[in-house]
Amino acid sequence: MRRVTRWAKWMAIAVALSGAAFSQAKQDVDLIVSGGIVVTMDGARAILRDGSVAVKGDAIVSVGPRAEVEARYKGAQTIDARGRLVLPGFINGHTHVPMTLFRGLHDDVTLNDWLYKYIFPAEAKNVNEEFVRWGTRLAAAEQIRSGVTTFADMYYFEDAVAEETKAAGMRGVLGETFIDFPAPDNKTNAEMLSYTEKFLKRWQGDALIHAAPAPHSIYTCSKKTIQDAAALARKYHAPLLMHVSEMKKEWEDSEKANGMSPVQYLEKIGVLGPDLVAAHCIFVDEADRKLLAERQVGCVHNPSSNMMIASGVSPVPEMRAAGVAVGLGTDGPAGSNNDLDLMEEIDLAAKLAKITKMDPLALNAKAVVEMATIDGARALHMEKEIGSLEAGKKADLILISLDAPNAVPMYDIYAQIAYSLKGSDVETVMIGGRVVMRERKLLTIDEPAVLEKAREYGKSVKASLGME
Amino acid sequence: MRRVTRWAKWMAIAVALSGAAFSQAKQDVDLIVSGGIVVTMDGARAILRDGSVAVKGDAIVSVGPRAEVEARYKGAQTIDARGRLVLPGFINGHTHVPMTLFRGLHDDVTLNDWLYKYIFPAEAKNVNEEFVRWGTRLAAAEQIRSGVTTFADMYYFEDAVAEETKAAGMRGVLGETFIDFPAPDNKTNAEMLSYTEKFLKRWQGDALIHAAPAPHSIYTCSKKTIQDAAALARKYHAPLLMHVSEMKKEWEDSEKANGMSPVQYLEKIGVLGPDLVAAHCIFVDEADRKLLAERQVGCVHNPSSNMMIASGVSPVPEMRAAGVAVGLGTDGPAGSNNDLDLMEEIDLAAKLAKITKMDPLALNAKAVVEMATIDGARALHMEKEIGSLEAGKKADLILISLDAPNAVPMYDIYAQIAYSLKGSDVETVMIGGRVVMRERKLLTIDEPAVLEKAREYGKSVKASLGME
Repeated sequence: MRRVTRWAKWMAIAVALSGAAFSQAKQDVDLIVSGGIVVTMDGARAILRDGSVAVKGDAIVSVGPRAEVEARYKGAQTIDARGRLVLPGFINGHTHVPMTLFRGLHDDVTLNDWLYKYIFPAEAKNVNEEFVRWGTRLAAAEQIRSGVTTFADMYYFEDAVAEETKAAGMRGVLGETFIDFPAPDNKTNAEMLSYTEKFLKRWQGDALIHAAPAPHSIYTCSKKTIQDAAALARKYHAPLLMHVSEMKKEWEDSEKANGMSPVQYLEKIGVLGPDLVAAHCIFVDEADRKLLAERQVGCVHNPSSNMMIASGVSPVPEMRAAGVAVGLGTDGPAGSNNDLDLMEEIDLAAKLAKITKMDPLALNAKAVVEMATIDGARALHMEKEIGSLEAGKKADLILISLDAPNAVPMYDIYAQIAYSLKGSDVETVMIGGRVVMRERKLLTIDEPAVLEKAREYGKSVKASLGME
Repeated sequence: MRRVTRWAKWMAIAVALSGAAFSQAKQDVDLIVSGGIVVTMDGARAILRDGSVAVKGDAIVSVGPRAEVEARYKGAQTIDARGRLVLPGFINGHTHVPMTLFRGLHDDVTLNDWLYKYIFPAEAKNVNEEFVRWGTRLAAAEQIRSGVTTFADMYYFEDAVAEETKAAGMRGVLGETFIDFPAPDNKTNAEMLSYTEKFLKRWQGDALIHAAPAPHSIYTCSKKTIQDAAALARKYHAPLLMHVSEMKKEWEDSEKANGMSPVQYLEKIGVLGPDLVAAHCIFVDEADRKLLAERQVGCVHNPSSNMMIASGVSPVPEMRAAGVAVGLGTDGPAGSNNDLDLMEEIDLAAKLAKITKMDPLALNAKAVVEMATIDGARALHMEKEIGSLEAGKKADLILISLDAPNAVPMYDIYAQIAYSLKGSDVETVMIGGRVVMRERKLLTIDEPAVLEKAREYGKSVKASLGME
């Protein structure tokens, strides 16, 4: 007995020493998000009931049970996540952010009237670089407030969009528009090409900004315009953003002119590939879906927009079944939504699929949360960088409060995110390790100034169109 | 000239004196909501850009331009509405409030599985009067937070729902359920009748509570059960709440068993009338719609629920065209929504109609705001009491902040309400002259206690069903 006791004593001393050594060897990190319900969206879709995330620089160094993470890492700062959900930041896969300044300018009209009677004249009279800057600031504020950390944009003066996105601390895949008529920024295709090449060069290697060419669509761009844009994307290893098969007329015209669907036409002219981000994909048949999957095209579903404009319903369950990466987008906040709240798109994607298929099992809560996170990352070809909480990925994460009547009780975490929680429940937002909103307070944007300026733009846009 | 000058002088003195007299004669009121953008929803759909609402007791005494109202009335209190929208409170025309405590308990399953595998067992094991009280408190908190001032409910222990609704200061049309199997409260039809008669008697003449019998549906109630409930409603001049033509099977079974649609069957058995509030009305053909309009039945559209359960799409534009009063509802917060945010239903009603009809003009922003206010009041047969801001109506009103990124700029007020503003933008809520939420703080509900209790119920419900 005596020897056993002595042995136990030695062991206790050894354990204490090694514990001390271990504790001294804790790695320093910048920040630990501590003690939340961590919804990782990793390959196993692990959910940690009492988890922590350690962050160093702009990346995640560890995700795991709180006790384990906090035994190994010492954070210079801590964010208390107890009683909250911790999720990868939401990914808004398709929008036109400067159009926030046209929010609600003539809804409830046909797309044709909206474009030709209202939006094109409004853009011709109002859109310049300054407009784009303020619109981007407003959109950044709105998106951060509802938990969006990355967005994919298509508009004009995209270099200014990039500067403002970076200033707001957001991650952006930002597409300069190619279109076969004079745009607010570039009047000719040659100017578009030259502007965009400069734009792509400028942002190469940037931690937050991925610059991209964005040929608008097959009905507004010639084959040459699209191919030029694609060649530029490939030269600079940039993504390529495009509206694809959004409108019935687009599909009908393609069948008539090319004898094939828009997707098949894009394949034929060499554009389908693992860099393409195709927004909408409503009119895509089985052969199209197979092709999109084979070519590793990313697709972005925009339920609010498709409903509001009455364009049609994308066959999302079939696309997922075919292996296509399908993300979610708000589309532009004018005429087709009219907000940038991706949590509404999560809810709507599920509900729209269910009613369309007349099947409540058509698309479930987990699937739509995937679309807003890891599948959204896949759709933007950024799944190595973002979309889940895993060591090595960018530290883009959000804390959602569960301290509201709509948040309790909670039986199923994915259902709560999809059907009960709101953008306004998002409490804290981190992008690339930088906290951009803390307890609902924006830290990178002068919100009162942005709201004031937006109201002024409201007046000047009205005046430019002869509205009261 | 001299006489004219003298005359003018006398007149000026007379005007000054009468002005002073007038100012001294200002009528005392309890409260003035001052200087907001007042969206009255009155017959002319007047919008006052700088308007005020004077309130005395539980009623509105005046609505008009600020200068006029404030020249005539002196408020003991003032609510500053500058820079905010002032609207009639939203009307949630169909829900099951105690089911908040089952929020998110098994979604994404068929209605049949949901009912028989999950909800009926969960109700049998958990629903009692205490459960219903806490569920009602939670639902009141959630509804007030998103601007709902009146709701129509169908559940069990409805007398307890009434007590809690009144305690929260909300207005309710509260239906005790009749169903042909033993319910959590009443085990036989005789007990249902006796309970409900007592319930109706107790609340007669109450300022906030309208008690009602609620035969569940034609597929769960015999002809006699429905007729008994209707007779009781008519005896006490109470409304009658019922699910009508929600499911395809309900319609098919009625055609088979009765040789006619559910609506025609209800006409035949003497139930259609100006006291009936019919939830859903999805499978209603032209003849049905004509009959609903002629009999002045109120209908309630529940877009989230219809999408989530995949029941079908109510022909709302056709119902409105036929002259039917169509309101909006969230339906229950378990399995079919899962929240009680009526602003989402406003947005969704428009978008669902557009995509269903493949017509962006199918249902516009103004129409859906009507459905949430004045038409919601008509659907509940309460249009003389609520639904618009007019002298003589109950002082049920909400202030919506415009101080958020999603709120600016504002080109069209109805579009902003329908498509951009959120439940979380609702700042202050008044019901019957009583402020129940001020600047997002609930004044009639102990919110932390309610959230805590809801979490406890979450645990006990899970345990009762053998869930982890």
